[in-house]
Amino acid sequence: MNLRNLIGISLMGMLLINCQEETVSGQNTGSKNNQEIIFPKGDKIANNNFVGSAWLTMLINADSLNQNSVGSVTFEPGARTNWHSHPIGQIILALDGEGYYQEKGSAKRIIKKGDAIKCPPNTPHWHGASPSSQFIQIAITSRQGGATQWLNAVTDEEYNSVD
Amino acid sequence: MNLRNLIGISLMGMLLINCQEETVSGQNTGSKNNQEIIFPKGDKIANNNFVGSAWLTMLINADSLNQNSVGSVTFEPGARTNWHSHPIGQIILALDGEGYYQEKGSAKRIIKKGDAIKCPPNTPHWHGASPSSQFIQIAITSRQGGATQWLNAVTDEEYNSVD
Repeated sequence: MNLRNLIGISLMGMLLINCQEETVSGQNTGSKNNQEIIFPKGDKIANNNFVGSAWLTMLINADSLNQNSVGSVTFEPGARTNWHSHPIGQIILALDGEGYYQEKGSAKRIIKKGDAIKCPPNTPHWHGASPSSQFIQIAITSRQGGATQWLNAVTDEEYNSVD
Repeated sequence: MNLRNLIGISLMGMLLINCQEETVSGQNTGSKNNQEIIFPKGDKIANNNFVGSAWLTMLINADSLNQNSVGSVTFEPGARTNWHSHPIGQIILALDGEGYYQEKGSAKRIIKKGDAIKCPPNTPHWHGASPSSQFIQIAITSRQGGATQWLNAVTDEEYNSVD
């Protein structure tokens, strides 16, 4: 083997090692493939107020003085809440992925990582993941004025609407 | 140039392209080097209620019905709020980095990405970044009961306490 071949093979080895390091650092910084971006995924939601698979981690529970509860919800692609409303509304912060949000009588909106939504009081709405992406949100819900009012499930026609 | 050299050089070229792709995908997934993890860094805070450099993006403004305001705050290493209190308390969600949180009369706590804190009503407290890391937090503050009461600056002795 001459010197040129030796240098070529050594360089290829160094490049391979560098590639592996870059790949690992990429996987450790919260990629779409990592379902736990910031908060734990939590427990699978077992009640009938959701369609599809969604997980909840309660971060803050309401008390008599600070009536806000805060939870992180992870929706699998296609999963969504039923229609529901809150006496003083709800705040949604999109942490990762792509989701849908719709208020009764308005067009469905696409919401993405970094979006913040204030849902008005006593306004039926639903939110969930798009068909092709999981969606992770923080929901800030005040118990002031009473509990969440759960309504009908979101039909596939409503979920897939493109108006 | 013989065939072995040609194959060697071609392989090195393919590896170089692959390395660059891996590096870019790593940088796009929210690494510690990217100060904008989820929400925009926003505007540098110019008031005297902070020590050091901090940035704020208001995500949700309070209104007469939903009195919660929500903001994303990025503290540079060493930056912190002054001591302050809220009539019904405050909720802090740690999104990235390592920070400090202390309530009057209690030991300083280290808080990290994924932590959620409920600060009690009318309890003087402060929060900020550790000396070696930036800290990004969501602050959920209700205007219910009145505005934030701002107090003295956190001294270096308080900031550096190790009790």
